[in-house]
Order: sequence, then structure tokens, then C-alpha cells
Amino acid sequence: MDLPAVILVHPQLSENIGTTTRAMLNCGLTELRLVSPRENWLSAKAIAASSGAAALLRAARCFDTTAEAIADLHRVYATTGRNRFMVKPVVTPRRAATELRDHIAQGLRCGVLFGPERTGLENDDIALADVGVTVPLNPDYCSLNLAQSVLLVAYEWYQAGDPAEPRAMTRGAAPVALKEDLVGFFEHLERELDDCGFFRAIEKRPVMVRNIRNMFERADLTQQEVRTLHGIVHELVTWRRKKGEVEK
Amino acid sequence: MDLPAVILVHPQLSENIGTTTRAMLNCGLTELRLVSPRENWLSAKAIAASSGAAALLRAARCFDTTAEAIADLHRVYATTGRNRFMVKPVVTPRRAATELRDHIAQGLRCGVLFGPERTGLENDDIALADVGVTVPLNPDYCSLNLAQSVLLVAYEWYQAGDPAEPRAMTRGAAPVALKEDLVGFFEHLERELDDCGFFRAIEKRPVMVRNIRNMFERADLTQQEVRTLHGIVHELVTWRRKKGEVEK
Repeated sequence: MDLPAVILVHPQLSENIGTTTRAMLNCGLTELRLVSPRENWLSAKAIAASSGAAALLRAARCFDTTAEAIADLHRVYATTGRNRFMVKPVVTPRRAATELRDHIAQGLRCGVLFGPERTGLENDDIALADVGVTVPLNPDYCSLNLAQSVLLVAYEWYQAGDPAEPRAMTRGAAPVALKEDLVGFFEHLERELDDCGFFRAIEKRPVMVRNIRNMFERADLTQQEVRTLHGIVHELVTWRRKKGEVEK
Repeated sequence: MDLPAVILVHPQLSENIGTTTRAMLNCGLTELRLVSPRENWLSAKAIAASSGAAALLRAARCFDTTAEAIADLHRVYATTGRNRFMVKPVVTPRRAATELRDHIAQGLRCGVLFGPERTGLENDDIALADVGVTVPLNPDYCSLNLAQSVLLVAYEWYQAGDPAEPRAMTRGAAPVALKEDLVGFFEHLERELDDCGFFRAIEKRPVMVRNIRNMFERADLTQQEVRTLHGIVHELVTWRRKKGEVEK
């Protein structure tokens, strides 16, 4: 069992069991356990709400009590919105995610409990867990629905294992311009700027040239973009020349 | 402007504008901008879906075009699900959050674009942004609704500024037991275990005592819990002695 189980305790609406599976599968979680659901989790509403994640509904296991639902697990985390005045470690979802991954790496089976939509988990359910999970949110307004609670925990689980680069440049096959090409463009542009008298004060030319070159440098130009810029400069100049010829 | 604006481009359903404000306010975001919404964002459906965040709907500003909606901003991030084959930096929501906070700390105004529910942003809208944001999720199944996309970005924004301890012990006012109290309990327990013949092999007693003490140590007992344990031992022993007298 290399994924934590998502365990819904007394979920009230079958639609929310459906939306839960949708949230789970977005983040690669597939094992759903239900404790005494009020409605049928294979209803048309639930299946529609699962938006393509219905396989998780069909594979879901149902139990009469929370104790039975967690019997085969080693580590259980219980989501809770408010301080329950119990002596219990409480972690953020981000921390829970790294702990769950550590537990699983050590061969321990894990699950995360989510309570009924309006009321959350009972204290007795939380007492069965090792650790509480509280999502740090706006203290003045905290209103997540069940699927959103599942999504945030599942999202953190996924992020804790995902090697996605935080920042990447999508350029596809477009290669970065060589400095030789870039300087070739700078010299072309500067020739034309000289020609049209852009650098009015000769003593300011070096600074202005540097500023213009720095500006284009920051754009991380590709080879194609340098060619495009050459073309822009050329066309602008040619038009100017044509206009000049017409006006002569 | 010390919060990034959430900008919905051509949102299709007023209900989703409502759920968006609910997601925003959970994470402390309050500024909503709408580009040419298809439905009325102050409809009964929208207000109901906002679940107490209706103030954001009433304060929302409406624009005809994306360009107008972002005109007064310095930095714009655009959420996108798939590679658009444009040369653009793309970041994770987690990275976007830290960058947004940096920009805002430097006095730059920021916004995040979200596209229509089914289709996402047009390439022209993305071209107006500085950076793309893609949520790393299950590549085999990626199905977030609009409010969930907003929630994940907003959640990362909130986490990037929140000082929540990753792991904390909620014990309220219950003070941790002094070692003196703990050892007092150990000695009480061991006396009673000696008395009832628990340590059958005397040469194993030191190891067994150490194991028992280590077990209780890991429970991070409070003062009250130590007293409770004293009481448990006492009652069990008293019960045993009473039973012993009856059976004689």
C-alpha cells in the first residue's frame, strides 16, 4: 500500500463522495474508504460528480465504524478545523504530506480521516488518530467544502513527491540566441539609430547603447526572435526610407 | 495594493464566480476582477455559492477586455493547464506565491488570470501575462474546477505568508510532566509489578523496566496524565487485592 487511504466518516451527500474521488484522482490518490455513508456512493449523482473518477467509487470500501475502517493501518491522520482541547500533535497539510511519505517509505500503511460535511470529525474519531491535520487559512473566514479539504491534503501529498521544477521556461524547440547573433542585432539596430540621428548627444551614446542592450538581454531572446527583430528594424527603416523617397 | 487580484476571464456561470469568492476569502484574498462575465455575478445563485463571501462579489470590478482588467498592474500571472508552445516562463503555484509576495513587497501590483470554465485562457490572454502558472497534478487525470484552481493558487499564496508551525502539540494549558513526577510514576508502577510477580526472570528485569519506561517517555505525558496513570495503577492493584481477599 504505497498511497494513503482517504477515509470519509459519515459523509452526508453522495455527490460529495463523488467530488471527493475527483479531487483524489487529480493528485494520484486512489483508495477511498467510507464509514457509514448516509447515501449510496454509487448513485447517479455521485458518479456524475466524480467527473471521470468513478473507478474510485466502485473500488471504495465501506465500514460500519471508524475503528474498523482504520484497523489495518499503522498511521492515521485526522483533519480538524478547530482546537479540540486534546493533547495531540497537529500538523499542517504540508507537513502531513512529508510525514505520510516517510511512513510509507518505511512500509507503514496510512490513512487520512475527513468528517461529515457540516460538523467535522467527532472527538472519538480524532482520538483514534496519531496526528491532527489543520489547514492554515484565514482565521476570519474558513469555509472549505469536503472536496476542497480532500483536495488540499491530496495536493500537498502530490507536491511532496513531485519533481516539477518550480520555474521553467517553455520554449519548446526554440533555441536560445547565441551572443554572436545578439550582438549582430545590437550593431544593426545601433547603425540605424545612428543613421536616423537617435543619439542626439554624442557623449550620452555609450550609456544609451548600454541601456538598450541591457533591455534586450533581459528578454532571453531565442534565435528566431533575434531574426524577427532584425526584420522589424529593417522594415521600419525601409519604410522610413520609402517615405523619405516619396516625400522628396 | 498588498494582495494579488484574482481575475476571471469570461467566466461562464455566476455560481462559479460565487464559489471563486469563497475560495479566495479562505485564503485572505479579497480583490476580484471580471472580464466580460457571461452571467450576472450578483445573482442569487452567485451570492448563495459565495457562502458568506458575498462582500467580494459586491466589490468586484467588471471590464470588457483582459487588457483593460490588467492595465494598472505591473505583474500578471496566467494559469494554464497545458503547454501553449509560447516562449514563456512557467512556474508552479508554490513558486508563483513566493514571487507574488516578492513583487508586492517591492510595491508592484499583481494579478492572476483564470480562464473560462471549459476552455481555459486564450493564447492572447496568456501573451499579456509575464508568467504562466501550471499546477503540477496527476498527468493521467487532471480535472480541477474553477474554484479549485483559484483555491490552490490562493492557498499557496496564503502558505507563503503564514507563520503556522508545521508541527505543534495542542495541549492547551496542560503542562508537561516534570521528570520527577514521571520517575515517581515509574517507581510506583515497578513496585506494584514487583509485588505481583510480573518480572519473572530477575536478570531480565532491568531491560524490561527500561523498555516500559521508554514506552511511557514517548507519550510526552502531561502532569495530569501522570496523575491519571498513578490512579490507574492504584485502582487495578486495589481491585486485585480485593479479589484476592474474596477468593481466599
